[in-house]
Amino acid sequence: MTHIYNFSAGPAVLPKEVLIQARDEMLDWHGSGMSIMEMSHRGKEFMAIAAEAEADFRELLAIPANYKVLFLQGGAHAQFSMVPLNLLRDKKTVDYVDTGIWSRKAIDEAAKYCQVNIAASSAADHYTYAPTQDEWQLNKNAAYVHYTSNETIGGVEMFWTPEVSDVPLVADMSSHILSRPIDVSKFGIIYAGAQKNIGPAGLTIVIIRDDLIGHASSYTPSMFDYKIHADNGSMYNTPPTYGIYIAGLVFKGLKAKGGLAAMEQANIAKAELLYGYLDSSDFYSSPIAVENRSRMNVPFTLKDASLDELFLKESHQQGLLQLKGHKLVGGMRASIYNAMPIEGVQALVDFMQEFKRVHG
Amino acid sequence: MTHIYNFSAGPAVLPKEVLIQARDEMLDWHGSGMSIMEMSHRGKEFMAIAAEAEADFRELLAIPANYKVLFLQGGAHAQFSMVPLNLLRDKKTVDYVDTGIWSRKAIDEAAKYCQVNIAASSAADHYTYAPTQDEWQLNKNAAYVHYTSNETIGGVEMFWTPEVSDVPLVADMSSHILSRPIDVSKFGIIYAGAQKNIGPAGLTIVIIRDDLIGHASSYTPSMFDYKIHADNGSMYNTPPTYGIYIAGLVFKGLKAKGGLAAMEQANIAKAELLYGYLDSSDFYSSPIAVENRSRMNVPFTLKDASLDELFLKESHQQGLLQLKGHKLVGGMRASIYNAMPIEGVQALVDFMQEFKRVHG
Repeated sequence: MTHIYNFSAGPAVLPKEVLIQARDEMLDWHGSGMSIMEMSHRGKEFMAIAAEAEADFRELLAIPANYKVLFLQGGAHAQFSMVPLNLLRDKKTVDYVDTGIWSRKAIDEAAKYCQVNIAASSAADHYTYAPTQDEWQLNKNAAYVHYTSNETIGGVEMFWTPEVSDVPLVADMSSHILSRPIDVSKFGIIYAGAQKNIGPAGLTIVIIRDDLIGHASSYTPSMFDYKIHADNGSMYNTPPTYGIYIAGLVFKGLKAKGGLAAMEQANIAKAELLYGYLDSSDFYSSPIAVENRSRMNVPFTLKDASLDELFLKESHQQGLLQLKGHKLVGGMRASIYNAMPIEGVQALVDFMQEFKRVHG
Repeated sequence: MTHIYNFSAGPAVLPKEVLIQARDEMLDWHGSGMSIMEMSHRGKEFMAIAAEAEADFRELLAIPANYKVLFLQGGAHAQFSMVPLNLLRDKKTVDYVDTGIWSRKAIDEAAKYCQVNIAASSAADHYTYAPTQDEWQLNKNAAYVHYTSNETIGGVEMFWTPEVSDVPLVADMSSHILSRPIDVSKFGIIYAGAQKNIGPAGLTIVIIRDDLIGHASSYTPSMFDYKIHADNGSMYNTPPTYGIYIAGLVFKGLKAKGGLAAMEQANIAKAELLYGYLDSSDFYSSPIAVENRSRMNVPFTLKDASLDELFLKESHQQGLLQLKGHKLVGGMRASIYNAMPIEGVQALVDFMQEFKRVHG
């Protein structure tokens, strides 16, 4: 196959220049004679790589000094447990906003450890929008408020930051982190699996405010205690070194492209191109409320679902890969993360027009 | 640097042919147009890669059908918690054998959840040997017996398999797995971080007997429940896909080289070369009891410790990298895993002889 565009929801497309550099450095990193994969995580070469990755990530998101950045493992699923285990303290209840399948996973896990108050939910509307702040029923005694700022499966994104007074705000940003600037100071914890906008699967980044570190419940496994990782500079155990290296290359590329403000403009342009076409057509449609349409994950349906298989087959033949929607929602989904060029979105729209012309 | 030998204890040297293949496939795996890192873990390409890696691993270790192989994250540190969380059931005590720093880490973590009986310990002898079976004081009511079959820092390896009646036997084999055949049927759980003999850091492999799955304590995080991973074929969450791919290449290479019986012969030859030289010299020495000398991690000391820094500097200049001993034990350590060719060990011995000639 000569040229493809990869619309996978994650693991997902990476910048081509990152893969080229990784290829070129695979056997010998900077004259060390070693692959990154072969280096001790405590050696000076890798320590410098990790420090630079953290510094660039902090710069991209303008992370304040009173936040730690942790390079962990286990994805968002591990965070679903770590957040209650570390933040509950002597409280009995927590607030969760339910905007889709990923919110539900976080809620189900938290419910093992405490009483979960569903502050707002769009379940009755099949998760096609995110409840606005005035719909949120917050509990002043909650240990924290958790929400999923982009639902990767549902394609529902929240572009505003909730006001939660002095209760710590926790956000799962796995599928939109680094796609636009964020005011980190509004959050207690931000977490993200790497395998969408950051790098390869197996790396998870946590941004945590200092005062939330050090309060893990007594039965918390050491690997799930933020304090242990913070005190050891994310090297309590051997970190996923190659993933950190790739992430560092991605961060360097984002800086070179103008940082997150520039990425946001590029992501808006890509999203407008695709949603604009969906709205102009009666052959395709987006089920999501206009104000919550994700810029990263764009689910859409064909008017005639019996054409779904043909759409997937023909799009794949054209080099437009991994467009099948999640099995829980069906239809199609185009994930258009930072590393997807607008040419890829244009190629998808061109294909969709042609498919409609032939089969519409 | 033109040619080096990397003696890192982990992350560690990988087979050169694996790195070459990974380099060549980095941008386009088998004509898919995608890097492995960009593939959905649920797509047919990656599902086939993971299935083949598991099949080859099972073949190498002759794993019986009543054992699951799980590809997890979090290294041995995560297993230190997962083992008691999943195996304790209604028991109150567990047996641990204490042969070094890694045993101690496992013991300290288990002590969070239950009473740990130290069945045997070589702490009083500075962890320079492993207690033999007749020194083990086992408890018939223990939920399981845990030991560390190779201490990566201390360089103490046990070449025999304990008899523990019907109590499940759990072994941390992180630093010698795949270095020799093992009778898996004697074990309840075998676990190993990948970053020594398997592949890159961030992947952990667990071999677990079916009857030990499904008994996690109620406060176990889902990510730490063996049953959840087993029921989902290690795809409950996004697995460390690139690490699994690299591990799969390593397994293929081991099969091509004749499997674990052949590896054992090669590893014996390497170990005999290095220990033979240590024993023939009064300038260097090995602190470890002859019957427990690790074939994977060889700590040694210089008679005159004031020469340590010079030894490290000059060996590095000769392309012999990462020979510094762990900070907790000092001296030197040469890790000579599967991927270290005997030429590397010979180059080390040659250097040591020359260093002794000049400075002895």
